[in-house]
Amino acid sequence: MDLKQELKKRADFFDKQLEKFLNNGEPEILYDAARHILFAGGKRLRPCLAMISCEAVSGDVRKVIPLTIALELTHNFTLIHDDIMDKSKLRRKTPTVHIKYGEPTAIIAGDLLFAKAFEAMHSISGDPHVFKNVEFGLIDCVREISEGQQLDMEFEKRNNITEDEYLKMILKKTAVLFMYAAEAGAILGGGTREQANVLNEYGRSLGLGFQIHDDYLDMSSDEKTLGKDIGNDIRNGKKTLIAVHCLNNASGNDKKLLVKLFGNSKATDKEVNQVYNLFKKMGSIEYVKNTAVQYCEKAKKSLEILPYTNAKQILLELAEYSIRREK
Amino acid sequence: MDLKQELKKRADFFDKQLEKFLNNGEPEILYDAARHILFAGGKRLRPCLAMISCEAVSGDVRKVIPLTIALELTHNFTLIHDDIMDKSKLRRKTPTVHIKYGEPTAIIAGDLLFAKAFEAMHSISGDPHVFKNVEFGLIDCVREISEGQQLDMEFEKRNNITEDEYLKMILKKTAVLFMYAAEAGAILGGGTREQANVLNEYGRSLGLGFQIHDDYLDMSSDEKTLGKDIGNDIRNGKKTLIAVHCLNNASGNDKKLLVKLFGNSKATDKEVNQVYNLFKKMGSIEYVKNTAVQYCEKAKKSLEILPYTNAKQILLELAEYSIRREK
Repeated sequence: MDLKQELKKRADFFDKQLEKFLNNGEPEILYDAARHILFAGGKRLRPCLAMISCEAVSGDVRKVIPLTIALELTHNFTLIHDDIMDKSKLRRKTPTVHIKYGEPTAIIAGDLLFAKAFEAMHSISGDPHVFKNVEFGLIDCVREISEGQQLDMEFEKRNNITEDEYLKMILKKTAVLFMYAAEAGAILGGGTREQANVLNEYGRSLGLGFQIHDDYLDMSSDEKTLGKDIGNDIRNGKKTLIAVHCLNNASGNDKKLLVKLFGNSKATDKEVNQVYNLFKKMGSIEYVKNTAVQYCEKAKKSLEILPYTNAKQILLELAEYSIRREK
Repeated sequence: MDLKQELKKRADFFDKQLEKFLNNGEPEILYDAARHILFAGGKRLRPCLAMISCEAVSGDVRKVIPLTIALELTHNFTLIHDDIMDKSKLRRKTPTVHIKYGEPTAIIAGDLLFAKAFEAMHSISGDPHVFKNVEFGLIDCVREISEGQQLDMEFEKRNNITEDEYLKMILKKTAVLFMYAAEAGAILGGGTREQANVLNEYGRSLGLGFQIHDDYLDMSSDEKTLGKDIGNDIRNGKKTLIAVHCLNNASGNDKKLLVKLFGNSKATDKEVNQVYNLFKKMGSIEYVKNTAVQYCEKAKKSLEILPYTNAKQILLELAEYSIRREK
């Protein structure tokens, strides 16, 4: 089985539905802004996850189309607002919405996508009790994502983050939407409560592993030259799991050095290198790589009770991919 | 009947429910930011409107509590984001959320209130089909409010706004939430489709009249000294109905002068005065005052088919108040 092929097939199907759903609106500039990042080539991971979950419980994929659209719109709404907060200039190799359309229009474009996500949910057919439950799950996700984004910002100012606090933050900021995508895909596909729980558990491990592997990639992508991004993350005091692990395990002079330099916006290249070498010395980079692998294993194990299907195979390989990808 | 007393009674009841609904959460700073303007003494006009509509169809007010909370949270979410866009520093005599908590937290606080509004809606009891329809109305409001805010910003750069365009903008930005509050209050109160339509129509005229009277107040509040706000609005080229009327009716040298000075950020006090005198000369201020009165009359007339109740009397007086208030 070719995982990329399987994902692309579903992403292409999804794109057609999304295009139909969000093909026009006025004022034109607002809708252009709302569509800007949305159609700049995202991987559609969350919609794919919902579709494959639905298939894994032998559901009809057409039943999850509204859910897939809502997932991608919700994800993109948070990206647009996050990019404003983080002052990011590029996303998916294209200027961010606030850079291209200005901050006011970017804020509204995010709000609009949020509303459109719930509009999409309203096309869910069948039992309105099921609709109500599934929709409540998405509302809860947005609350948790908001809380997670705030935690992430607060962590930048603190050096005493525990690993549990870090995990809670990425659970909210990233994993909840994976959990919800997988669980709601199963529910709308007619799966049992047990199957939905299992897929929620899978989404949790997948989401955590995915984010932790991101932390690893950020710090290892350009190891030889110690790229610009690594320097920025160290100077900004970005609390990746690597930094959290190192801050919690270093002691004596190492700890003093770390506290002095990590998050110091004026740190020189040499000092950035000192921090990086401390990460290596404390085994933090290896630790994080291994932690991602453990979540991948956990994700796969959680699927045990599901019958073997092509969809299950895709989910197993997706877990592998989440910790093997190089970007 | 004392209108202010009647409104205050309901606002106090509402505040207790709101306090229960949004009394805590983490991270604390995020919830503090979300509560900041919300509990700074708003008039609770939308919740009151929903309650009185419910009463006007002999409904049980407890049935609209989730709706009233959702209305106020939605309104406040849009205020927080609008204040960021407009760079407003004060609201309800207190620093705006982004001034007090910073822009990033203010953006998230708005998003959180949006999610919490829909969370509140989920406490609506009874037939889930009714819930689904009523909730869809709120989603549609948020879409329209977003579109209206974008139009408002775009109008600042244009001098050829027709009165219809202006009305469409304030319909979206302000009136839709009044329409929805009144209509949904009636539906959840068990009113007939006809009653709900009538109250929607009332909300439309009330919302338009309310906003147009605001335009009038902004321009007349400080007539003798030509206050700072009036100067700012003229220098920013704010498209109130007064400006729209004057731009569409002035001709010859008057029009030339207006196009040159209106929206000119460097206009002197003398030039601002010239614009203001043109507004008076063209009868634009009187026109706008009269237009608000017409909407008030229309609002009252739309209630004709409702049986006479205390609630109906409040609605009639509320329409009067909306064009008589001085702030």
